[in-house]
This record gives sequence, structure tokens and C-alpha cells, in this order.
Amino acid sequence: MGVHIAKSTDERIVIIGGGFGGLELARRLRKANYQVVVIDKNNYHQFQPLFYQVATSGLEPSSIIFPFRKNFQKVRNFHFRLAEVDAVDTKAKQVKTSIGDIDYDHLVIAAGAGNNFFGNEQIEKYAYPMKSIKESLKLRNKILERFEEALSVNPEERGAYLTVTIAGGGPTGVELAGTLAEMKRYILPKDYPELNFDEMRIVLVEGAKHLLSAMSEKSSEKAKQYLEKLGVEVKVDTRVNDFDGKIVQLSDETTIASKTLIWAAGIKGNFLKGLPDETLGRGNRILVDEFNQVKGLENVYAIGDVAMMVTEAYPNGHPQLAQVAIQQGNLLSKNFKRKILGKSLSGFSYRNLGTMATIGRNKAVVELPKYKFYGFFAWTVWMLVHLRSILGVKNKFLVFLNWVWNYFTYNLSLRLIIKRNDDLKD
Amino acid sequence: MGVHIAKSTDERIVIIGGGFGGLELARRLRKANYQVVVIDKNNYHQFQPLFYQVATSGLEPSSIIFPFRKNFQKVRNFHFRLAEVDAVDTKAKQVKTSIGDIDYDHLVIAAGAGNNFFGNEQIEKYAYPMKSIKESLKLRNKILERFEEALSVNPEERGAYLTVTIAGGGPTGVELAGTLAEMKRYILPKDYPELNFDEMRIVLVEGAKHLLSAMSEKSSEKAKQYLEKLGVEVKVDTRVNDFDGKIVQLSDETTIASKTLIWAAGIKGNFLKGLPDETLGRGNRILVDEFNQVKGLENVYAIGDVAMMVTEAYPNGHPQLAQVAIQQGNLLSKNFKRKILGKSLSGFSYRNLGTMATIGRNKAVVELPKYKFYGFFAWTVWMLVHLRSILGVKNKFLVFLNWVWNYFTYNLSLRLIIKRNDDLKD
Repeated sequence: MGVHIAKSTDERIVIIGGGFGGLELARRLRKANYQVVVIDKNNYHQFQPLFYQVATSGLEPSSIIFPFRKNFQKVRNFHFRLAEVDAVDTKAKQVKTSIGDIDYDHLVIAAGAGNNFFGNEQIEKYAYPMKSIKESLKLRNKILERFEEALSVNPEERGAYLTVTIAGGGPTGVELAGTLAEMKRYILPKDYPELNFDEMRIVLVEGAKHLLSAMSEKSSEKAKQYLEKLGVEVKVDTRVNDFDGKIVQLSDETTIASKTLIWAAGIKGNFLKGLPDETLGRGNRILVDEFNQVKGLENVYAIGDVAMMVTEAYPNGHPQLAQVAIQQGNLLSKNFKRKILGKSLSGFSYRNLGTMATIGRNKAVVELPKYKFYGFFAWTVWMLVHLRSILGVKNKFLVFLNWVWNYFTYNLSLRLIIKRNDDLKD
Repeated sequence: MGVHIAKSTDERIVIIGGGFGGLELARRLRKANYQVVVIDKNNYHQFQPLFYQVATSGLEPSSIIFPFRKNFQKVRNFHFRLAEVDAVDTKAKQVKTSIGDIDYDHLVIAAGAGNNFFGNEQIEKYAYPMKSIKESLKLRNKILERFEEALSVNPEERGAYLTVTIAGGGPTGVELAGTLAEMKRYILPKDYPELNFDEMRIVLVEGAKHLLSAMSEKSSEKAKQYLEKLGVEVKVDTRVNDFDGKIVQLSDETTIASKTLIWAAGIKGNFLKGLPDETLGRGNRILVDEFNQVKGLENVYAIGDVAMMVTEAYPNGHPQLAQVAIQQGNLLSKNFKRKILGKSLSGFSYRNLGTMATIGRNKAVVELPKYKFYGFFAWTVWMLVHLRSILGVKNKFLVFLNWVWNYFTYNLSLRLIIKRNDDLKD
């Protein structure tokens, strides 16, 4: 069955995925002589860098996600289809989706990355990941439910209900740990006067020797200091080996009694059926050349987290960051336009604009190409950069408002457990 | 198994349900010499009058729900337990819940009302109700998904995907119909330029002779005129007899091809096991005397939608409205305090403060005890009254902000389909 999309005299570019890379590409093609079709399983773009604030009741999901259709109102060459992609057929030049087949002239795979549990089924079953807004909401519910549950368990079990272990000391893990530590200090004791929060441990476990491995040692050390000052137990050079829903097993042979394990320790490219085996590299990433063209395939491109462009500077591909995806989406839009004009294409070169992470109130680490800075100023820079990147004037304003509110009141008010009842219809 | 709650020298009042009635009672008992335990299956209070704005993407759920714990921070005699109530045992003076048994000295049943499908299993299976924030979110998802689905169905089926039928012409049905009509006019065509919205019908079906039966005929007529001007088809004196997920069967022998049926046509008291049969009246409501004491039971009270107090003025019990619940909760708190002082109790007498409904921009009907008014002024009164009633300064501000935003931009930005994936853990 074919999906009906209005015929066009222009060639059709089908983009799988409306994350940072796919969205940037589609936006840059607004006025190009191509028909653009974006396929996504959600009807909204997600601003992943702030998922951790949704998980910790600081922001509403709607403040950091944005409907595609609203973003492309009045864009005539744009079409959106809400669908799951099952496979691609590069011979027939079709994408097989849950709503039917979609033909393409050019295909751009911007499917992003999902959680990598490295084959550990126990961890996959019991740990809570945070790679989508749904998972972040789920985690918010779970964190809050643990405190409710803790009220009615035996005193000796209570510590395990209050304790949160985070696997992965990248920005997500660091930011989560810091926020949870501040909740423990400022908010939770007010909400739960019946619980003793000295029993609550927040443990951050990182396999590498340093937190925030994309940053310098100095910045990692600073982040670790901040976290420890807030009461987070930081374990570097340690891995989570197993988890049965109650006990976290670490590679240093110790264990943590912890009902909640948050998984921020690994990602892998979202796999698409139909691509030749030889196009797949480490971590399910699709091997591309400097023009983001998939190796050995014509008119098929991959950008962002799902793509692996091996260069001298990046022998294992670029870091899987929003910045890389956006820059690749941007360049690919230019190359598509050049193609029509018969101009030669430009190769990709990543420009690192800087990395940053926030740990808590007035506490952040920022590394720009030429400067490193920490503390209050870094924290305001972090906020400005994130506000600037959020889609939509209203969302920017709402996020800003929430931040100001939370800063002065020490009281995030979204501690809501909104679970879908099993008896509700699909 | 007993649920642990700190011992107190004061008698314990257990309140089942934190809706308008239960919440008012608990708040008024803040400084009383009672231990107060509120049991609710959600950790938040819901502001039901604005559910319809959540269902139509106008407000975020978190703007109109509020965590109980936050509301009772620093209240020493207050305890909250997140639990489902299975039954009450009035002999043992215990409430049986999903987390164990909870003892009481005084029990207040404020369990509210749920959907009444009048025994029609087909309608229960296929229609979408809107009696909780979860159901409202579910409906928001469904309304939006229908438009996405409409893009890939056969042209002759498309009308049914776009059409929305609403059963029940009370305030909920009227407000929903009006809002959907404005979405059809101002928003949806921009989001879905590929669809022809002339094919979208909005049909409001009411069994009685007039919409808004709690109001005067004049006001009902005014509401009907407003709706028809917005393009809503209003069918009074007509019932929805059946629905198979595709075709709505009406009592006048006609049918409507409509994939979406919203059920706002009936409620019944939320049933609790363990109460003697003779305490139950029509529509599962619990029969109470003028002090809201359940007939034949000591120290057991019922307030709000679940209670039925038969009086001369209200031979079928009071209307199931927030105002009644709040006034009963308020009076019961006073009677509890009088009891301690050995004073005699006051009987309940309902004071109707007025009823109102909004139909759309600048369009509302308001009936106060002495005045009736319509149009722009009524619409601003409606907004002020609702803003005033919403819990929390931040929520008031957010709702106000959203209203102002939507008023000037004609563009609600929450058109997000956030569904829980089935593969996510519970």
C-alpha cells in the first residue's frame, strides 16, 4: 500500500526522524526546489538536553517538545507523516512504514540513537532510561512513586526505596545527580516529613576515569567536587555489572541497595532493516562519507547520532551530540541545493562550539574553544545557550519562567504521578 | 497488613478522595485537633472544570492539577497515602486499600463520581470519556491522531475520521464543542493543509430538551445559538443509543459517521465495597442525612458527588457540582470542630452561587442568583471565577498566560501526542 502524498514536479527528499539533524535539514530546505517528507513516530521534536529536568519535576514535557506541524505551517513543500519506519528498500527506493510505503528520490536517515544495555537483559528490564520524553515522564513518575512506596515498607528496606543510582557520568548523569541532590536537600523533606532523608543515597557510577569525558580533566574534577559537595557519591572507573530491581552490582565487587537505577551509560544507533550489512559500523552506526552519503548506496544519506563518518580527527566517528547533527543537517541542505545548481558538494568538518554541563544552582562547567569557566557565570551561560536553542517563543518563555520560579522558591511544583491506567483505551 | 501512620492522641479522620469536597475538608482541618489522613489513587488534586481545555490542547495537565503534598507542606496533622481503596469495613473501622488496612475513628467518603455508560458495553468500549486528567490527555492524543490517520485513509472514509460527536450537552459537552469548532476554524487548517475541513463535523447530542439543563431556557437557547454560529450541529431531545467505533446510532433513527465519540452524558457515584445495600441510592450515590452522615452508620460520612442528601428542595439529591462538594466539605469541617467542643451540629443547606459555561472567544453564558448575562462580559467573568478557583499561584499564572497567549495568537501550541509506549515498564 502506498501512502498518498501530493505529486510534485520536484524531487522528493524523505527524512526519517525529526531530531536535531532531521529538523535542521527540513527547516533549511523550506524554500528549496525539493518536496520534503519528514517521517517520525512522534508528532513533535524533542529537546533532549533538558529531559533530565522533566524527569526531576522541574519542567513540563510540553515546554521542551514542539509539534512539527506547527513549526512548518505555511511551508508548502513540507509534508509530515506520523509513522514507525519498519525498513528501507534501497532498490525500490521506498521506505516501509506502519502506514504504508513511501517513495523517495533521496533518503536521509536521521533516526538517532537509542539506549544501549550492552546485551544485559536484566538491566534492560529493571533500569530506567531517559532517551525520550516518554521515558523521562516515566522516570518522573517512578522517582516520586518510590517515596510513596517507602512510606509503607519495612524500615530496613526503606533505604533501598529512597536510593537512586545513576549509571553513566556524561552530562545527563551529572545533571540528574545534581538535581536529585538538590531535591533531597530543599524539597523532598518538606513533601515527606514522615521519611528520613539521611537514608537517601544518590550514587553516580562512571566507567571511565573521569566524569564528562568530552571535557578536560580540570572540568571533570570541578564537576565531581560540585557533586560531592551536594552529597552525591561519585564512583569513577567503575561499571554497573548487573541489577535485579533491588541490588546494583558494581565492577568493584561492591553492591548498592537501590530500587531505582537510571541508565545513562550507553547509546546505539537506531537500527533500520534493509541496509546492507557492510554499511553498519560500531554501535549500529551507519558508515558515511564526508558528504554524509551512506557507503555504497546512491541517494541515501545518514546524519547525526546514527551516522559514523570516520576521519583522521575522529577515527571512531564524531561524538553523538546535537551540535554534530545540526551541523550535518545544515551542510546536507546546502549540498542538496548545490546539486540542483550543478555545483560541487562540500565535505563535512565539525566545528566544536563548546561543551557544558550544569550541576546545580549557580554551579556549572563550561568549556568553549578558548575559555573554560565554572560557577555562577558558567551557570548563566548554560541557561542562555539552552534557552536560545529551545524551539518556540512560548516554550522559551515558559522554561525561563519555570527556572526563575524554581530558583527563588526552591520548589518545583510538577511532582505529579500521571500514569496511564491499564484500563484506558489505546 | 496495617499501614503505618504515626500514632496521635487525637482522633483520626480518614478521607477517601482528594477532590473538591475532600480537599476542602482537609484544608479546613489544618489546625483542628484531629489527625487527618487523605487517601487518593493520584498524588494530585484535579481541577475538573478545565479538563476540556486539556483535551483540546489549550492547557497543560500540570497547570490544572496540584500535588497534595505540596499543598499540605508544614501541616503537622496531615498525612497522605497514595492508594486505591478496595473496600470499607465499618465494623472493624478500617479502610482496605492496595497498600494495606488503614484504621479510622471517623471516615469521610469523598470518592466522587465516574462515568456512567448506562450498561452499554459497546459505548464503554469505544467512546472517550473525560472524567480525569488521564482520560483528558488520552482524548487529546486521540483527537490529534485522528487527523494524522485521516491523511492515509480512503477519501470516502475521511469524513468519519475528522468528525467528532459529543454525547451530553452539559457544561463539559458545550465547552468541548465550542472549543473544537474554534480549532476547526482557526488552527487545524494551518496544521493540516492537506485535509479539507469542510468534511469535519462537530455534533453535540443532548437527551433533554435543552442544553445546560441547570440553567434557564433563555441561557440554553443563547448557548445553542453561539454553538450553531460556530458551526456545531446541535441535536437536543436526542440520545446516543449505540456506537461501534465507526457509526453513532441516535435515538431519532439517524446515524453519524464518526470515529470519535466523546462521552459526557452521565456519571455515577464511585462504588465502594463494604457499605450496606440500604445506604445506596440512585446512581450509586450514598444516602446521607443533613449532616452528611451515612444513613444507619456511625462515624461514617459522605460528601460531594458520591453523596445523596434528599431534601424538599432536592428530592433527587443535590446537583453533582464542585460548589456542593466544597460547601459540604466546609460544613463538615465545622461540625467536626463543634463535636470536640460538645456543641450541636449544623445541617447542610446549599447556596447556589451561580452557574456558567463558556462557548468560545468572547462567548459565555453566566447565571448568578440575581443576574443573567451573556457575551464578552460573561466570558471575562467565567475566566476570573475559574482562575480564582485554581490551586496555586503559579498554576493561576500559567493558565492566565496560556489564555492570553491563545487569545492573541489563535494558536494553542500543545498539540502533542504523548502516548506511553507499550514496551515501557510500569
